[in-house]
Amino acid sequence: MRQAGRSLPEYRKVREGIPMLESCTRPELITEITLQPLRRFDVDAAILFSDIVVPLRAVGIDVDIKAGIGPVIETPVRSARDLERLRPLEPDDVPYVTEAVGALVTELGGRPLIGFAGGPFTLASYLVEGGPSKNHDKTKALMYGHPELWHALLGRLAGIAISFLRIQVSAGAAAIQLFDSWVGAVSPDDYRHAILPHTKRIFAALGSHALGDDSVPRIHFGVGTGELLGLMGEAGADVVGVDWRIPLDEAVRRVEPGKALQGNLDPSILLAPWEVIEERAKDVIARGRTAEGHVFNLGHGVLPETDPGVLARLTDLVHAESARTPA
Amino acid sequence: MRQAGRSLPEYRKVREGIPMLESCTRPELITEITLQPLRRFDVDAAILFSDIVVPLRAVGIDVDIKAGIGPVIETPVRSARDLERLRPLEPDDVPYVTEAVGALVTELGGRPLIGFAGGPFTLASYLVEGGPSKNHDKTKALMYGHPELWHALLGRLAGIAISFLRIQVSAGAAAIQLFDSWVGAVSPDDYRHAILPHTKRIFAALGSHALGDDSVPRIHFGVGTGELLGLMGEAGADVVGVDWRIPLDEAVRRVEPGKALQGNLDPSILLAPWEVIEERAKDVIARGRTAEGHVFNLGHGVLPETDPGVLARLTDLVHAESARTPA
Repeated sequence: MRQAGRSLPEYRKVREGIPMLESCTRPELITEITLQPLRRFDVDAAILFSDIVVPLRAVGIDVDIKAGIGPVIETPVRSARDLERLRPLEPDDVPYVTEAVGALVTELGGRPLIGFAGGPFTLASYLVEGGPSKNHDKTKALMYGHPELWHALLGRLAGIAISFLRIQVSAGAAAIQLFDSWVGAVSPDDYRHAILPHTKRIFAALGSHALGDDSVPRIHFGVGTGELLGLMGEAGADVVGVDWRIPLDEAVRRVEPGKALQGNLDPSILLAPWEVIEERAKDVIARGRTAEGHVFNLGHGVLPETDPGVLARLTDLVHAESARTPA
Repeated sequence: MRQAGRSLPEYRKVREGIPMLESCTRPELITEITLQPLRRFDVDAAILFSDIVVPLRAVGIDVDIKAGIGPVIETPVRSARDLERLRPLEPDDVPYVTEAVGALVTELGGRPLIGFAGGPFTLASYLVEGGPSKNHDKTKALMYGHPELWHALLGRLAGIAISFLRIQVSAGAAAIQLFDSWVGAVSPDDYRHAILPHTKRIFAALGSHALGDDSVPRIHFGVGTGELLGLMGEAGADVVGVDWRIPLDEAVRRVEPGKALQGNLDPSILLAPWEVIEERAKDVIARGRTAEGHVFNLGHGVLPETDPGVLARLTDLVHAESARTPA
């Protein structure tokens, strides 16, 4: 469960006084924060503590994460000339990631570490808008009005994502997840023409053809992507993440055979009484059994006000239920 | 096209120095602003200038619309006792609406005026959260954790919506639209149990059984409701509004026979060059022909930065294309 840390007092303690992006560049903090949820919850994997804008900052983009707002970019990227600021990412740009992943793999023993990068639409939106956006208007205006510039921008972002993920896999990450959080803002036709080719390139670069023995399972997630699930699988994801808006058994019908699903309990349900959580979690597991592989997860990040005790109880419930043979 | 006014200089001029909610309580301003888009665009209907929180303020809720934020409620509604503040709406609470609708019907001659109210989930979210919300956490926590209070709250909001819409129909509105803008944040199961009964009651109260000769076509819209379209039709809407995330020909497959669709050009497309707009608008019209009735519209409100000239050209294109017999 991504962002499980946000709800933990020990997370808030180690982060005290340290800006978000600085905490993502200190190997000992990355390691500590990544491990914190595993000390409390019996989860099957760890996910690297980082942020989707970390590689952008590493290549020199003036991005900062402002509390209560999100990523803010001082000088937005809107012209061909601006693209020059998006140079390729080299391993030397993110030594703290290599170091933290290495340390984590040792600490975790057999438990897998999931690597992490931001998807091209979401990163493009932050860069073009200059910060979080409700409608992504400027981003879409660029996408519709200047297709050459758009593809050049997404090409650079895909290249950066590939580097960032390969660095993590080389250092020992056992799977990768590409978060294109806001890609659900576009229609299937737009996804197919404007985004799919770039996502495809990212997943191909992490696949068995490209990496041989190093190839790793590839997970892909975005919010509100009910109409895009088939295309997100087509892009090359092995596991398609699903938010809570669409029941998993319906999501199964929208992806091609051979894809596993991840999801999809509404994070808000964790604020409800335990009986409600239990009923809903069991429902997710039951519907997940219709998929060719199901990774139980929330349908989006853990809400900061979630009770860690509830997360622990949920993890145990999922293990117990998964072990049961369905009637 | 709702909120077409926002992009017009004459709108900004008449609103100058007048807070949003005050402008919704002055009959001459409501009338003027409702008519402004019709002077520029050859649209088939007018939609009443108002706001979904107008009836809440009219029953005494301390709501204000803050520029750049949205509706803010000083004292949120979160307990059974808070519900008492949501008393029934009487025609005397909104005399300015009755007056403006009457004046508009006269001014419009044969052109229909569409009445307007907010849907129960969206109003509940503003009341419970105290303002706009990204995740609607507190609202959902109430919905999951306190179903009795939830249904009591939505029952009151449905009652207010019924009154507000009947007042408009009695004054001459020829159709009504229920905007449950944020209802797409819940899953189909939650919609069915927590929201559908209330929406059903609203539409039933505006249907032919309840109003006899006064019955009017009922339109229902929310953002990101791809998985809910069938249920929104089931709730009693004659026309189901669709955002741009789902192609209209796919939306047709999700509603029961006999329902018309409204939508669904992405408002951001209007920021693109005309050739792109033209191609996309034609595509919407072509897909709309697969529905049992199609009202061409945007998939959400007009963006403030939209060029009014483009809206005029789009309206003409839609008329010309609709008149053509498809090949």
